[in-house]
Amino acid sequence: MIKVGIVGGTGYTGVELIRLLSRHPQAQVTMLTSRSEAGRRVDDMFPSLRGVTDLTFSDLDEKKLAACDVVFFATPHGVAMKHARFLTENGTKVIDLAADFRLQSLQDFEAWYKLEHACPDILKDAVYGLPEVNRDAIAKAKVIGNPGCYPTTAILGLKPLIDAQNSQQQALIEPWIIIDAKSGVSGAGRQAKMNLLFSETSDSFSAYGVAGHRHAPEITQGIDQILGQSKRFQPHDIRFVPHLVPMIRGMFTTIHVRLTAAGQALDLQSLYETSYQNEYFVDVMPKGMYPDTRSVRGSNYLRIAVQTLENSPMATILVVQDNLVKGAAGQAVQNMNVMFGLAEQTGLALVAVVP
Amino acid sequence: MIKVGIVGGTGYTGVELIRLLSRHPQAQVTMLTSRSEAGRRVDDMFPSLRGVTDLTFSDLDEKKLAACDVVFFATPHGVAMKHARFLTENGTKVIDLAADFRLQSLQDFEAWYKLEHACPDILKDAVYGLPEVNRDAIAKAKVIGNPGCYPTTAILGLKPLIDAQNSQQQALIEPWIIIDAKSGVSGAGRQAKMNLLFSETSDSFSAYGVAGHRHAPEITQGIDQILGQSKRFQPHDIRFVPHLVPMIRGMFTTIHVRLTAAGQALDLQSLYETSYQNEYFVDVMPKGMYPDTRSVRGSNYLRIAVQTLENSPMATILVVQDNLVKGAAGQAVQNMNVMFGLAEQTGLALVAVVP
Amino acid sequence: MIKVGIVGGTGYTGVELIRLLSRHPQAQVTMLTSRSEAGRRVDDMFPSLRGVTDLTFSDLDEKKLAACDVVFFATPHGVAMKHARFLTENGTKVIDLAADFRLQSLQDFEAWYKLEHACPDILKDAVYGLPEVNRDAIAKAKVIGNPGCYPTTAILGLKPLIDAQNSQQQALIEPWIIIDAKSGVSGAGRQAKMNLLFSETSDSFSAYGVAGHRHAPEITQGIDQILGQSKRFQPHDIRFVPHLVPMIRGMFTTIHVRLTAAGQALDLQSLYETSYQNEYFVDVMPKGMYPDTRSVRGSNYLRIAVQTLENSPMATILVVQDNLVKGAAGQAVQNMNVMFGLAEQTGLALVAVVP
Amino acid sequence: MIKVGIVGGTGYTGVELIRLLSRHPQAQVTMLTSRSEAGRRVDDMFPSLRGVTDLTFSDLDEKKLAACDVVFFATPHGVAMKHARFLTENGTKVIDLAADFRLQSLQDFEAWYKLEHACPDILKDAVYGLPEVNRDAIAKAKVIGNPGCYPTTAILGLKPLIDAQNSQQQALIEPWIIIDAKSGVSGAGRQAKMNLLFSETSDSFSAYGVAGHRHAPEITQGIDQILGQSKRFQPHDIRFVPHLVPMIRGMFTTIHVRLTAAGQALDLQSLYETSYQNEYFVDVMPKGMYPDTRSVRGSNYLRIAVQTLENSPMATILVVQDNLVKGAAGQAVQNMNVMFGLAEQTGLALVAVVP
Repeated sequence: MIKVGIVGGTGYTGVELIRLLSRHPQAQVTMLTSRSEAGRRVDDMFPSLRGVTDLTFSDLDEKKLAACDVVFFATPHGVAMKHARFLTENGTKVIDLAADFRLQSLQDFEAWYKLEHACPDILKDAVYGLPEVNRDAIAKAKVIGNPGCYPTTAILGLKPLIDAQNSQQQALIEPWIIIDAKSGVSGAGRQAKMNLLFSETSDSFSAYGVAGHRHAPEITQGIDQILGQSKRFQPHDIRFVPHLVPMIRGMFTTIHVRLTAAGQALDLQSLYETSYQNEYFVDVMPKGMYPDTRSVRGSNYLRIAVQTLENSPMATILVVQDNLVKGAAGQAVQNMNVMFGLAEQTGLALVAVVP
Repeated sequence: MIKVGIVGGTGYTGVELIRLLSRHPQAQVTMLTSRSEAGRRVDDMFPSLRGVTDLTFSDLDEKKLAACDVVFFATPHGVAMKHARFLTENGTKVIDLAADFRLQSLQDFEAWYKLEHACPDILKDAVYGLPEVNRDAIAKAKVIGNPGCYPTTAILGLKPLIDAQNSQQQALIEPWIIIDAKSGVSGAGRQAKMNLLFSETSDSFSAYGVAGHRHAPEITQGIDQILGQSKRFQPHDIRFVPHLVPMIRGMFTTIHVRLTAAGQALDLQSLYETSYQNEYFVDVMPKGMYPDTRSVRGSNYLRIAVQTLENSPMATILVVQDNLVKGAAGQAVQNMNVMFGLAEQTGLALVAVVP
Repeated sequence: MIKVGIVGGTGYTGVELIRLLSRHPQAQVTMLTSRSEAGRRVDDMFPSLRGVTDLTFSDLDEKKLAACDVVFFATPHGVAMKHARFLTENGTKVIDLAADFRLQSLQDFEAWYKLEHACPDILKDAVYGLPEVNRDAIAKAKVIGNPGCYPTTAILGLKPLIDAQNSQQQALIEPWIIIDAKSGVSGAGRQAKMNLLFSETSDSFSAYGVAGHRHAPEITQGIDQILGQSKRFQPHDIRFVPHLVPMIRGMFTTIHVRLTAAGQALDLQSLYETSYQNEYFVDVMPKGMYPDTRSVRGSNYLRIAVQTLENSPMATILVVQDNLVKGAAGQAVQNMNVMFGLAEQTGLALVAVVP
Repeated sequence: MIKVGIVGGTGYTGVELIRLLSRHPQAQVTMLTSRSEAGRRVDDMFPSLRGVTDLTFSDLDEKKLAACDVVFFATPHGVAMKHARFLTENGTKVIDLAADFRLQSLQDFEAWYKLEHACPDILKDAVYGLPEVNRDAIAKAKVIGNPGCYPTTAILGLKPLIDAQNSQQQALIEPWIIIDAKSGVSGAGRQAKMNLLFSETSDSFSAYGVAGHRHAPEITQGIDQILGQSKRFQPHDIRFVPHLVPMIRGMFTTIHVRLTAAGQALDLQSLYETSYQNEYFVDVMPKGMYPDTRSVRGSNYLRIAVQTLENSPMATILVVQDNLVKGAAGQAVQNMNVMFGLAEQTGLALVAVVP
């Protein structure tokens, strides 16, 4: 059994980690920390966990944490980077669900998160935890930056096209990509903020981060990584606009691209199906079917549909996931499975809750 | 492996059975029938099942069904009773999620469901599938009438009090019980009806069945069964009023009772905790905690809280469940587990999806 | 034009007052105060008011407020009572939407609200602002305690029965009344509390105040007032349990009573229709029709249905209103209309927003 | 008083017309028809109208309809065109809320609606009822094609930019426009369809019409009309993808454009503010504020925000409206006001219902 620690189990990604790991056949949560709730049973705070776990929150004690095989940080940005050195030096792997180890550019990190990075050397060796892109590196990593929810959909939604650009050594899409994304409210976390109240967000729809959002540089970095040595997109070539949907979970990302003549000659449906045929968690919908977010509610699947139009250079890529599972805690467990050599779906064979 | 057939897999209880059974370690769905959808893959209809099952709907063929060990009927009222004889004569057990085998009184059945019963003799031997009440009989049963969602909450909410009446041989509550129940919209099934449209039910709350509801006689029967030879309640002593909540899943039943002097002398909290201490799926909340429906969303748990008031004869019992799981498909699988000698929670150790 | 001041326009009852009064043909909001938002335009905070009003929040200045003909307090409990003396001494009428002038019993007020009352003498002359009960007193009042949302439904739901008891001089209902009430989330106000987050309350249903709620003594007082010299109910005879519904607006109150033999002889439908035939805002549904909350969304109507059962002493009274309109701001404007001799529906002829 | 007839008052646009017109000071609904509901009071079907109107549905009788000054068709596509000749020949104006008089191209109409047009000559003289674009023509029109909900947002969202292109006689945006639109469920109408059930659409998000949607040619036509003699966009240059939001009312349209060098030199904020400064119902949000759909819920306002980015050619235009008001019935009443020489906001000075 893998001994697991969770730092910060009072937020939505924390409770989701507990939900998933409590039924994981080869992992056991042995430590759960929270400064504010130390001494309290987690099922007192989340009655949905009654009968599921006996865990009690404790104070964060680095030495005790280092007895775990792996520690998940379900904390605000800036916490994991303070503990990564001690833990990794003691042989404990780190999976950070916040942003401390996502952006390789210190300048971007500091500009977007208004934090000085505590361990740039560790960051340099950290791996961006998107298994469908970086599986081999994840398997060997000591520190994982678990991807943001939006970047997961954007990067996996574009990957087959960009891989094809690389292998064909020519541009298939014009360098103007629109990522119009929509997220359920749980994506904003468990924070007592006025704008997240039921009476404020229910029966309404809005945009946010319209002037710029932290996930934009992460998306650009992810695309650049796949692009590799070939022509880079400029940051402004990717326009990312997130929206808030009156639903709890679920993320729907609509990607609009303009195909070049070479791109129009492609069979995108077949390209996507082939590209993901061996991925357990990525499902390419059959031609003419489009995903809805509920089809992944509570599960670790990410579904994609592609649509081209006759006599038009435009293509639309639709991507859905549960923002708390494949977009956060599920992906983190998937990373853990890869890191410990388990089958990737271990403990993650969840069927979406529909209706 | 238990070979399972499902008749009528296109409704919400049907798809929920598939969700549960697809991950059941000792059962396998080998047949799934639907008149209207024969030949269609179930994951074409419910994309949430893509990657989970390869099942295809077939026409209902009694002989083929009889090759199953057990057949679940997730059909409208009146279907299971037409096939129960053939199946049971061929050694196949029947679990009906509709009402054909719930009411022992033919008169009540015909009055409330406007159907003549096709097999009164089989009905007589059928067992009301509420394991916490009838576990032993279920273990031996050939035909199970899986309880209605509301009766499950009402009967389990009142059972400890009535058992105590029996053991103390005196009345603990006055014979006027108010069952004010609230259900998510999925309880009405997957039917294209105007009043179930999103634009009709969202952001609104209503009552229905105010002049009488089919689950009233079922609740009365369940209470009477527990009451046994002691004083029976008259049907009009139980007032059941259901309401529709703008949520998909979840049932919340508020039971108002008036305690007798003997009843007021009881420690209800302790009575309930003791009563259910060995039940895996029934959770009595600690004093001062009250359940919400999301705490059981997607899981087979039923949670109960009891509240008495100082200087008052009144007591309030709050019961929640997921109407599609403990209120329907989960309870059906629980019954199957009992019938086949499996641990009751086999395949049902689901953690509620929160948030 | 009536000059209107609003103290505390940043909450939901405040913004609702502005919505209603901005279109009132005989009133004009001339002052709007908020400590925290002084200097800010109200439509900067509530963009729904852009193009509707030019009002800017100012600090509370008693002297300036006293230039108004009437001041509404849409503030927390305990604010209005501090200003009532100054305002009324200067000829300004006061309508408090909080609880300062609801409970005539100082003991009850202090027990339930944990506040010492600042002006018991003014409280003594204050009028409980339920026009359908106290119209004449309201017309002459200087200070109005605008009713709580739940008590409005409970008192108007029971009034015809209790009036009939009085006129028949015999009990028509047994002294055990169950008030099982359900409210939309806006009833909890605009407060940044964790339990009011979308992700906490959406797609879920819960009870609260199960061990006791501030509106219980207010309901009892209201019923007692109608009962007058006849037999009083004891506080514990009324059991009030509120619930939280995942909708923004709307309140649905299910009242369960047990009729005496004399009560069973009554034609309740006719009693209710007659009782409210001259009330503009109270609508008794035809026999067999039941109200839903959306039918009053955004309007000042309160709808009632009554249901009796054959061979049963039980009766059910269903009451709906928009908690922010008839349950708060609309009723306050209705009170203002009565106080200033206007037709009661002036500025309140709003049609519910359906769907 | 303008005598108004409504054909087809059983759908959502019909009941919304009644809501608006019942409080219109210079119009009176004198006739309301429905084949299926003839003889039934409308408030029996929509209890929200109890106390508001005494209207009863009648059969459609052209002669009686012709006694009206104006007839609204809140019917399926293809109904209005059958009655337009008789009505206009008898001096009755026609406002069709369906698509019969929207598309000037017969070929487009027949291709997208699969109907042969009944009166191409009348269509030729019909006016597209978007007052902010066609006010003068509407004032003189006999037949109005009331715009689709999506085209209203798309055309008004782009108009200032295109007007500026015309006046500057140079391209300001590249000819690739992405219209990523999101609508509440009421936009699909009041139809008993499975995919519109609460349990299917709540807590989920989806796209539809991904391969093509009827509003695309209408948007293109609207843009072309404004473009006039200048360079036309090709149909494929506008990519329109609609999505379904789990809310009742509200439409949010995100328009992504790429500015030319000349476009980047513009101050878009100022351009939009100036462009709409005299429009009662179009509100340009201040720089840095973004609209949410609830800010227009139940009202006839349409709000717009524009966002440019430093060092980027991209611009984003956000547009919200209530799809049933400015997107349908409210705009129809606005058209009526223009046609009959009334102030445009007559009967439409509704304040959005928030929260």
